[in-house]
Amino acid sequence: MNPHMFSQPANLRDMQITDSFWLREMELVRNNVIPYQWDALNDRVPGAAPSWCMHNFRAAGLQQQRIREQGSQWQAPVYAYRGFNVLPEEGEEPDPDAFYGFVFQDTDFSKWIEAVGYSLARKPDPCLEEIADGAIDVVCSAQDENGYLDTYYLLHGMDRAFKYLKDHHELYCLGHLIEGAVSYYQATGKDKLLRAACRFADYVAQLFGYGEEQCKGYPGHEIAEMALMRLYEVTGEERYRDLANFFLDQRGTQPHYFDAEGHERAEYEKRAFRPGEYSYYQAHKPVREQDEAVGHAVRAMYLYSGMADAARINQDESMLEACRRLWRSTVRDKLYVTGGVGGTEVGEAFSFPFDLPNDLAYSETCAAIGLAFFARRMLQLEPISQYADVMELALYNTVLAGMALDGRSFFYVNPLSVLPEACRRDKRFQHVKPVRQKWFGCACCPPNIARIVSSVGAYAWTKTEDTLFTHLYMGGSVKFRGLTLEITTGMPWSGDGEAVVHAAAPVSATLAFRLPGWSRGAQVLCEGKTMEIRDGYCYLSGLWQEGDTVRLRFPMRIRMLTADTRVRENTGKVAFMRGPVTYCMEEKDNGAAMHLLLADAEAAERAQVLDGEIEGHPVKLLRVPGRREKPRAGDELYQDYTAPEYERTELTLIPYYAWANRGEGEMNVWVRV
Amino acid sequence: MNPHMFSQPANLRDMQITDSFWLREMELVRNNVIPYQWDALNDRVPGAAPSWCMHNFRAAGLQQQRIREQGSQWQAPVYAYRGFNVLPEEGEEPDPDAFYGFVFQDTDFSKWIEAVGYSLARKPDPCLEEIADGAIDVVCSAQDENGYLDTYYLLHGMDRAFKYLKDHHELYCLGHLIEGAVSYYQATGKDKLLRAACRFADYVAQLFGYGEEQCKGYPGHEIAEMALMRLYEVTGEERYRDLANFFLDQRGTQPHYFDAEGHERAEYEKRAFRPGEYSYYQAHKPVREQDEAVGHAVRAMYLYSGMADAARINQDESMLEACRRLWRSTVRDKLYVTGGVGGTEVGEAFSFPFDLPNDLAYSETCAAIGLAFFARRMLQLEPISQYADVMELALYNTVLAGMALDGRSFFYVNPLSVLPEACRRDKRFQHVKPVRQKWFGCACCPPNIARIVSSVGAYAWTKTEDTLFTHLYMGGSVKFRGLTLEITTGMPWSGDGEAVVHAAAPVSATLAFRLPGWSRGAQVLCEGKTMEIRDGYCYLSGLWQEGDTVRLRFPMRIRMLTADTRVRENTGKVAFMRGPVTYCMEEKDNGAAMHLLLADAEAAERAQVLDGEIEGHPVKLLRVPGRREKPRAGDELYQDYTAPEYERTELTLIPYYAWANRGEGEMNVWVRV
Repeated sequence: MNPHMFSQPANLRDMQITDSFWLREMELVRNNVIPYQWDALNDRVPGAAPSWCMHNFRAAGLQQQRIREQGSQWQAPVYAYRGFNVLPEEGEEPDPDAFYGFVFQDTDFSKWIEAVGYSLARKPDPCLEEIADGAIDVVCSAQDENGYLDTYYLLHGMDRAFKYLKDHHELYCLGHLIEGAVSYYQATGKDKLLRAACRFADYVAQLFGYGEEQCKGYPGHEIAEMALMRLYEVTGEERYRDLANFFLDQRGTQPHYFDAEGHERAEYEKRAFRPGEYSYYQAHKPVREQDEAVGHAVRAMYLYSGMADAARINQDESMLEACRRLWRSTVRDKLYVTGGVGGTEVGEAFSFPFDLPNDLAYSETCAAIGLAFFARRMLQLEPISQYADVMELALYNTVLAGMALDGRSFFYVNPLSVLPEACRRDKRFQHVKPVRQKWFGCACCPPNIARIVSSVGAYAWTKTEDTLFTHLYMGGSVKFRGLTLEITTGMPWSGDGEAVVHAAAPVSATLAFRLPGWSRGAQVLCEGKTMEIRDGYCYLSGLWQEGDTVRLRFPMRIRMLTADTRVRENTGKVAFMRGPVTYCMEEKDNGAAMHLLLADAEAAERAQVLDGEIEGHPVKLLRVPGRREKPRAGDELYQDYTAPEYERTELTLIPYYAWANRGEGEMNVWVRV
Repeated sequence: MNPHMFSQPANLRDMQITDSFWLREMELVRNNVIPYQWDALNDRVPGAAPSWCMHNFRAAGLQQQRIREQGSQWQAPVYAYRGFNVLPEEGEEPDPDAFYGFVFQDTDFSKWIEAVGYSLARKPDPCLEEIADGAIDVVCSAQDENGYLDTYYLLHGMDRAFKYLKDHHELYCLGHLIEGAVSYYQATGKDKLLRAACRFADYVAQLFGYGEEQCKGYPGHEIAEMALMRLYEVTGEERYRDLANFFLDQRGTQPHYFDAEGHERAEYEKRAFRPGEYSYYQAHKPVREQDEAVGHAVRAMYLYSGMADAARINQDESMLEACRRLWRSTVRDKLYVTGGVGGTEVGEAFSFPFDLPNDLAYSETCAAIGLAFFARRMLQLEPISQYADVMELALYNTVLAGMALDGRSFFYVNPLSVLPEACRRDKRFQHVKPVRQKWFGCACCPPNIARIVSSVGAYAWTKTEDTLFTHLYMGGSVKFRGLTLEITTGMPWSGDGEAVVHAAAPVSATLAFRLPGWSRGAQVLCEGKTMEIRDGYCYLSGLWQEGDTVRLRFPMRIRMLTADTRVRENTGKVAFMRGPVTYCMEEKDNGAAMHLLLADAEAAERAQVLDGEIEGHPVKLLRVPGRREKPRAGDELYQDYTAPEYERTELTLIPYYAWANRGEGEMNVWVRV
């Protein structure tokens, strides 16, 4: 552990992203996703499931108003416990005073405002800011005088608040509220929502802790840990750090809090208590003893991100060790070649090591986003290029695949192989959609994409006192210690680029550039500076002056990859990558029955890179020499084996993130060889 | 349609099975399964889930006694609707007057008594018969005066009887009761249970029908159709045939009965009606319009069996056409190489054509048994050897795999590939067990195995007025028109055998022998008789005398099979068979990581057949030349492709039915080539 190397993400307001690839994505989010989300939050997207999010805040605000008007006369209606997802009965008119939607529906707003904040930091927009301020007013109007702010319990009468930590996402709502509030504050300087988030956090900090009267629980769905650490870093208030530490240190300890809570709940609901599998919640053992990535993949990524923050902020060596073990378990045994994680739909969870089904994959968009969170935080702890390699893999592939090229539809699940007939006719594939959906009742993924795409610069650059790290390559500029580093690059299609320094006066600094793991013979060239290569980064130190130029030479070859032989699904198969981009075949280019296609063993050397276009979006395509196994003639399902016959063909591969933009069809990442 | 060729199964009392292979299985059932089942029915198997079956009959009998004693004074307790599977609360003492278990729990008895009947027909056993008579007394004591006999409704107060036809298996209970009663009557001549079954059927026949006041429903889980047809054939009472026809003809017609029932139920339960997917119940369209095997596989097989009975009994050409289409859909597109059907766990159902997952297979034991029912009935309609080939495949592979070699544990689900770690750690594999289980709460499979194994002779031989068909080859003798045909055979390990005629006086008859589909150059040799080969059967006609001998020469080679290229799971793979036996590899013989094993392309010619033994049971093993792909070295999950390295090895294959008898381990039917 070397605290001197701990870094912080560069401030979004200190950078300008001009990169044609990422700017397009950011503008999509700004122009399409954020306005669309706002409509969704207000239940006015025709044909989409209502979110109920702003409805709930309004209802809770009305309630607060009545409390103020009627004082102690006023009695909150106490609704019966109505389950995890509350919907109006068919044909029933929604009750303006009632809560609807999932228990975590408040976070639809929090994620939206977080994305809005990042977007405003990059590009001010008075109209959007006005809408956001109005939304914040509604949200803040719902807050109880004591600071409590979760509309599910506010509107259900509060008698069961903090009694369902395992399953009800109450502290998850707190965490997202903080993330959104900090983002908006950092972008606009307006602190109304930040103060509301602090008040909620203060209220929780009073209730939870080691004191005799305090609750010993912690979140069932993690995020509060990293959010509270972030709030601590923004406000300097140690109680937020302490609360985060409390949640982390309590997790998975004995006697198990979820057992105690479960007993109370069972008694309340008049039924027998049945203990659950706490590994789903990463609460099967204390966090420092965990060594395998398990359970719900998004929760896992959020927890590990919070652990990495804690390791850094507390300079906690044992926590760092746990983070390293969990990182290794994630990327060594459980990572899709598309940067996705979470192999099984049951529990949206990690499966056992090397169990990475392609067609039945879960690989939730949010989990890949969480992996980028985790990776960035590991980079903040220790700049080792593998973290950035994986972060880049997740961002360019599964994260971007989560959104259509027109920004109007989304994937929740990101399979590596799709047969549309299976999605339609085999209920095992119920979670797999062959085309992106407009919105989801459980709308975690679209706003999560919006927030990470809008803040991608904070993943590209982090800084210590004297060093600016460039982890990801994207065109744009970033300010650091009086200099501005301007990067031009052809990423993700070419690894060549340059970084030019602009400075009114010479600045002493270290500029560190990642050597991408996908490049053989990567070079960073710069004259007159001290160069050191360490852990996959090239450190250039010296006095930087206007016009100093660093040339980036990252040869980009077509890589034909094979999986560890323990990955049963990929035996005898290969996947293609070029730079950070994973490729796939679509039926549109290759015809149906793609399981009968084979790539030649020497395809990597003989494949071609071509310019192409998908729905107006320029991409590099791969043309790969291969064969097609001829369908067997005959009238029987099973026949005597005869050597298969083949015909020569060329396979056309497109970037994985661009699949399913040209209608429904088969898709495959892994190809027989 | 040629009614002259319609055949009936040979009477079990007219045959003697001496075959070492099948006799062993029958004795297992007689000595282990039937007594074990009886204990299970009485909830006295330690460690197994209670059946509650006899408890329920006793409780209902007690109730009938009270009704008789108290007359109109007596009031049945009306329980609230308590769901599909009623269990005592934890720690609660079971109520001796209450129903427990699944709605169809009565059928545990019916299947048991059916197997008992077949066993007694083969081998009288006064002690077993006495137990059975006692059980029948208990069951009959539960019958209402009006003939009704389903303990779920008897003990719940009857107000909701016949209101849940879609989901509550009430007519399924009737069907199994008939099957059991007929079997016991045919074996022992005792008609107490048969009369009870007739009274229940009479009661149902009054309630259901085309009359204005009559119910227009039909079973959600089929079996009553074929059972009523059987009852008609035994009793000659046309009302049973008419009721079966009514159920078949009503099924899937509009307005849809399940809609009407669902509306009534929703109203009763005060909730909105949501129509289901009626294809699960094979009720999505009228049966004569069905052309794809869909839905719950056991139900499908039972329905199609009833349809085949109806086609024969009614001489109904359009019904026969539907049966042929459904047969073809089943065996051409949806049949495992192990004779199993039902590719998906969701709904225990058929998936879409060519979707035959190996590891996630459902392939329920009962569905393979149902396939044998269907096949035998198609053979009764038209003697075409393909029906018998499939029947034989199901019996020797999936059906027998359902039971351990010691008869003490059972599979419900029969995968074609198993990785024990996946069964333990990946919840998608929750339904797949790597070792057989002692008993199941939903105990359909063990008693189903018992009843088909005990009556296997009725699948081996059917007869018309003048022709005796030998469909399956097993050592033993069968009486026909004054002659006794005595068969000796080395099946399933050798296709050679002979059939010798014993007759006090010459008998004019046709003896028809199936030419097995798995044999090339099959020959049936006999002197002095007219020979005709038609539809895979060799017909020998003439005057048969003592000592006349038919020699059976069915060369048995090792077959290396490949699947239709549309079966995605089996691309680049082969399966091995010899005669009717499908083979598999087990970890015990081949080491772990069996997905890295490959068979040579010319393995079929170079493989050896060896004598072996599994848990004392003699089998033929296959030794197949092949290779093992070397695990790739390296520390990364994904690496640049290099051609895999192999080492030569020999694969050892054992019969699929004998797998999982030597502890837990990997298993694979399909092998890379």
